[in-house]
Amino acid sequence: MQFDHIFYPKSVAIIGASPQIPYFIKPFMEPEYDGKLFLVNPNRDEVLGLKCYPRLQDIEEPVDYAIFSIPAKYTSGALRDCVDKGVKAVHIFTSGFSETGKEGGKELEEELLKIASDKLRIIGPNCMGVYCPESGMTFTNGMSKEAGEVGFISQSGAHATQVPLAGMMRGLRFSKVVSYGNAIDLDSSDFLEYLGDDPKTSVILLYVEGVKDGRKFMNALKSACNKKPVVVLKGGRTKEGARSASSHTGSLAGSAKIWEALFKQTGAISVRNIEELIDTALAFSRCPLPRGRNVSMITFSGGSSVVQTDACIDMGLNMPVFGEEAIRKLEKITSSVGGGITNPLDSYHSYFRPGGLLEVANIIAPEDYIDSMMLEVSATYTRMRDEGMHDEFITNVTEVKRYVQEEVGEPFMVALPDTCYTEERAKLQEAFQREGIAVYPSIDRAARSIFNMYRYQRFLKKK
Amino acid sequence: MQFDHIFYPKSVAIIGASPQIPYFIKPFMEPEYDGKLFLVNPNRDEVLGLKCYPRLQDIEEPVDYAIFSIPAKYTSGALRDCVDKGVKAVHIFTSGFSETGKEGGKELEEELLKIASDKLRIIGPNCMGVYCPESGMTFTNGMSKEAGEVGFISQSGAHATQVPLAGMMRGLRFSKVVSYGNAIDLDSSDFLEYLGDDPKTSVILLYVEGVKDGRKFMNALKSACNKKPVVVLKGGRTKEGARSASSHTGSLAGSAKIWEALFKQTGAISVRNIEELIDTALAFSRCPLPRGRNVSMITFSGGSSVVQTDACIDMGLNMPVFGEEAIRKLEKITSSVGGGITNPLDSYHSYFRPGGLLEVANIIAPEDYIDSMMLEVSATYTRMRDEGMHDEFITNVTEVKRYVQEEVGEPFMVALPDTCYTEERAKLQEAFQREGIAVYPSIDRAARSIFNMYRYQRFLKKK
Repeated sequence: MQFDHIFYPKSVAIIGASPQIPYFIKPFMEPEYDGKLFLVNPNRDEVLGLKCYPRLQDIEEPVDYAIFSIPAKYTSGALRDCVDKGVKAVHIFTSGFSETGKEGGKELEEELLKIASDKLRIIGPNCMGVYCPESGMTFTNGMSKEAGEVGFISQSGAHATQVPLAGMMRGLRFSKVVSYGNAIDLDSSDFLEYLGDDPKTSVILLYVEGVKDGRKFMNALKSACNKKPVVVLKGGRTKEGARSASSHTGSLAGSAKIWEALFKQTGAISVRNIEELIDTALAFSRCPLPRGRNVSMITFSGGSSVVQTDACIDMGLNMPVFGEEAIRKLEKITSSVGGGITNPLDSYHSYFRPGGLLEVANIIAPEDYIDSMMLEVSATYTRMRDEGMHDEFITNVTEVKRYVQEEVGEPFMVALPDTCYTEERAKLQEAFQREGIAVYPSIDRAARSIFNMYRYQRFLKKK
Repeated sequence: MQFDHIFYPKSVAIIGASPQIPYFIKPFMEPEYDGKLFLVNPNRDEVLGLKCYPRLQDIEEPVDYAIFSIPAKYTSGALRDCVDKGVKAVHIFTSGFSETGKEGGKELEEELLKIASDKLRIIGPNCMGVYCPESGMTFTNGMSKEAGEVGFISQSGAHATQVPLAGMMRGLRFSKVVSYGNAIDLDSSDFLEYLGDDPKTSVILLYVEGVKDGRKFMNALKSACNKKPVVVLKGGRTKEGARSASSHTGSLAGSAKIWEALFKQTGAISVRNIEELIDTALAFSRCPLPRGRNVSMITFSGGSSVVQTDACIDMGLNMPVFGEEAIRKLEKITSSVGGGITNPLDSYHSYFRPGGLLEVANIIAPEDYIDSMMLEVSATYTRMRDEGMHDEFITNVTEVKRYVQEEVGEPFMVALPDTCYTEERAKLQEAFQREGIAVYPSIDRAARSIFNMYRYQRFLKKK
């Protein structure tokens, strides 16, 4: 495919390699990168124990991909060397171009483009480049070496770093991440096309502050949305945010209204912040699509049922009442009767009775006015731990997930609010995630993620 | 004061004590409760090694306060015993009254009220009762034994448990918490009056689903708001949430509009969920009031600056540009120039340079168009840890907090988003909190808390 030499290069050269950039070099030295690594620096014989070539031309073998970690003023010379050497793509990490607003930045970018011509492609400048666990490409320490199905295209280097790292803690794994910065050549549109066709990517995340070619972007977005869900965070939605974006990537952020119209038209799922971007990716990669926006919920207290209902409504979901038959069945297994049996179901005892939660799920999930199910876990857990029920609880909840998602075909999510003890929470979260359960730090965020899946489902239906 | 026998009883009797309710009894057995504890149960000689009295009357000494952990049908008999014994207040833990919607619930409540008459006061039924670390009164394991300045009045038992536990993890400490459930006698209004006058309480949190006497509630709320900030979470804001509230505490939740008008009129600060309730309490107890809503922010990346600006604007704050003089000073200490220096300040290097953050704060915080300051800490920290800078970083940030809050008199908050590694985050959060710093899990939530303080400041100014 088009950009395979970017995500799966057979050989990589780091131009300007020095011990000061170990986070760029070290990950490549680990056995996970199975291509060849070359370091280039005219002032050093070796860096971190690896041989340094004075110039790119001194490398005897072909080089697919070069990473520039050199001051802006040296980039045009280095790029000419790359063209001579037959390098296919270059990632310019360096900043100090048009984004500074300083004289000469724009001109330097134009010069680079002219040198590249149709001979090689440029990622950047002012960006982090590529992370692809399958090939071992990476740009910082600590990224998971395990490949997943989430792709992420980011105009921001910080977000390109944080989203995979934070996503990893939530159990997400990525297929490909690219931080493309000033986008003088390759832009979000190009990567949308590539990831849209990439069989290893089932959901695409996009962080964008602005685009150079609006028409091309719209077409690429539309085409990608028709193939898989595309979740977009537009940085600089507000006037003040747009001002900040302009000094960040030199982007003209455009009006919020135009962007919202664009997202509506293409079927892209717009989100408001990084957290929602990750939350929504988690929903798509862990859960089946909901048929509609009617949610059911099991909580451990009446007070929780009340505030979490408000939260679900705030986030765009419906909270239907249970039908008579479901109520009759629930009466038999709960201590409440009639009016006491509402959705959300305050069912403290089901958490503690083996199979109790599954019994409730068996009644609620298959009802045709229910499209998804959420389970709230919180301070309740403290008592479970005290009674030695940790493992049993994980097993019970996993069984509910299996039933709701695989047999009934609805999303199932666990909310583990930060009103749950911190130590317990991390342990519980990990245990649930190991079982493939979608875990959220609040009902709001779980509800919003279900709503975002519902938006995509509605888009598919309209097509 | 009026309810001192509730929060500081000299002796407590647990009616219906059994080994099945260790979470009620055990905390009282610890040395922290310095009053006398008596257990009552006609069917047992001892519970958890403590002597059981067959009837309340068999206790030789006076009893201030009684906790009922007996089925609803036995409560009227037990209450008569309490009147005979001269008990001053009773907490009825038991549920199964009007909240069930079942026949007889309402009548039983009326009977209890008649028995109590003007001889004793009732908390509940269907509630958790009282937590007061100063006297050792508590209702569950794990609550902090350290007293603080936050009071919490909760119609929900679950929230009364979760808020102090979750608050504790955020560094909050409580003066008094009361869960009052069905409120057949003592209602939120009564506790608002008491905590309004309580010198140990500097901020009051309130969770309410409905009130019996609207006029009394309004007056109590107004009076309390004139003495200290009152932060209110109204459970059942939405139609569906109100339905859930009705089966929880039998409350008629009333229309959202009426409640909003009431909060506006009284000066109460309404919040949308439990998280915001805790966040706002933290702001009031850790930070000085902001003069206005102009925020400044230090971030570690351009991408972050963009999305966090959007978040602040969403939450009601302003993000003013820096003045010429501030920019001139910032140019000298950052690598950016002119247009690159915006608010939020993308100042990655200041995090790593000793005194770097303080240098920035010295320039920004005193500007008269700035009312508060936020610092975003995230994945950056990973590198700090790798470079052995943990302790130094905590010291640096603490120094900034001291300067901004004590010298300049503005709120200073740290945001530690969940885009920061989980393990690192818990450690960092704890370290910051030990230094008295207000730490938030996202910029949104920090921004909202500053906005809520601003609302209170505006109310005070209008008075």
